[in-house]
Amino acid sequence: MSTAELLHRDTRYPAGSRVLEAGCGVGAQTVILAKNSPRARFISVDVSPASVQAAEAAARRAGLANVTFQPADIFSLPFSKASFDHVFVCFVLEHLPEPVRALRCLKAVLKPGGTLTVIEGDHGSTFFHPRSDAAWRTIQCLIDLQAQAGGNALIGRQLFPLLRATGFRRVEVSPRFVYVDASRPAWVEGFTRNTYIAMVAGVRQRALAAGLLARREWTKGIRDLQATAGAEGVFCYTFFKAVAVKA
Amino acid sequence: MSTAELLHRDTRYPAGSRVLEAGCGVGAQTVILAKNSPRARFISVDVSPASVQAAEAAARRAGLANVTFQPADIFSLPFSKASFDHVFVCFVLEHLPEPVRALRCLKAVLKPGGTLTVIEGDHGSTFFHPRSDAAWRTIQCLIDLQAQAGGNALIGRQLFPLLRATGFRRVEVSPRFVYVDASRPAWVEGFTRNTYIAMVAGVRQRALAAGLLARREWTKGIRDLQATAGAEGVFCYTFFKAVAVKA
Repeated sequence: MSTAELLHRDTRYPAGSRVLEAGCGVGAQTVILAKNSPRARFISVDVSPASVQAAEAAARRAGLANVTFQPADIFSLPFSKASFDHVFVCFVLEHLPEPVRALRCLKAVLKPGGTLTVIEGDHGSTFFHPRSDAAWRTIQCLIDLQAQAGGNALIGRQLFPLLRATGFRRVEVSPRFVYVDASRPAWVEGFTRNTYIAMVAGVRQRALAAGLLARREWTKGIRDLQATAGAEGVFCYTFFKAVAVKA
Repeated sequence: MSTAELLHRDTRYPAGSRVLEAGCGVGAQTVILAKNSPRARFISVDVSPASVQAAEAAARRAGLANVTFQPADIFSLPFSKASFDHVFVCFVLEHLPEPVRALRCLKAVLKPGGTLTVIEGDHGSTFFHPRSDAAWRTIQCLIDLQAQAGGNALIGRQLFPLLRATGFRRVEVSPRFVYVDASRPAWVEGFTRNTYIAMVAGVRQRALAAGLLARREWTKGIRDLQATAGAEGVFCYTFFKAVAVKA
């Protein structure tokens, strides 16, 4: 099992259904989605034309014929009301200052009876062994920087109230718990090291520039995080997936 | 699904096997264990004679004929070496200053090829919505009090390294994630309110007496915890279950 399988294995759209993927970025999820539902038709949009171009290239490399791409803003979607059978949105709400308004815009283009699927992480769900306050402070930098940019890195736990607040029915949240210890070397490499620690390490310059942490504290924190990927280490993280229906 | 099912559903011992339950307390797990494996024979021990008596009464009320009870200390078990086919221990290591020494004592009475099953919680795995530092501080009181008593309320995440340190083979840890929102009212009542919040609320006197929190902070913290069981609330907690084999 990979992270992609953990998150996407239960998303399958019927033949002929028209699915909006909102905020496709460079197409990391698009490729999985479109492969898993080869007879559904996807329209994948992103606010960044450069990302859309990269996603298009990724879909071409993957030999996908069931996706069309276009630049579009979630808050002013160029689609008719109730024109999609299903909507899919993954790792997008965490970046938006107004997630409920975004969900309302997505609901508007969804047909009654159609589903919305949302996937988000939650950095506050992270815990690990050996424990380390220094390691935790580096994660907190990521959370703080995302908040400063208007996002919310702890949004995963909120999917249920957010979808209810938007008026969706039959909101079903299913957490996807990631547990990694040395008996799962592919997860140690693929998740703990190359996904999570790489993501935290990636904000080093911004965290130091913002004065969130001193250089020495940062170095110790990252070293301690790396120990959680060691022979005695354990790393835990939770993604949240919600499926809800438009009444 | 109940907490008991979540934790115990995959523990089934074969007919005729001799199983030690170490630290049975008042028999809460014993009753489930013995019902799930009606043809295995359980010897359930606890260091407290009063608890053993209560456990015996619980087993009688449940009509169980496959359990015998006796007072015994994990650190000086009155059993021959390699005399059990399997060993089971649940919510016990968290209370012990020397969990690895306890695991060694349990390993000694286990036959080669036999399994050890360990279940523990991890209070550091708790997270919820609405977020609240005050609520978190009441949980921290529980963690601190348990540490002062020589225990470790964050032991769940450590099962893998602890079992490896004790020399067990084929250590397999499977986390049991508890996710509770208002769409799961039985869990809101049974877990969030009546198990978790009740447990935190139960240390009020000790926390205040130890000066860990002021009375007003405590009251606010518990009120905020209760909000996580409300209509918009979400509550998450992880138990850890490990099964390992003696070489």
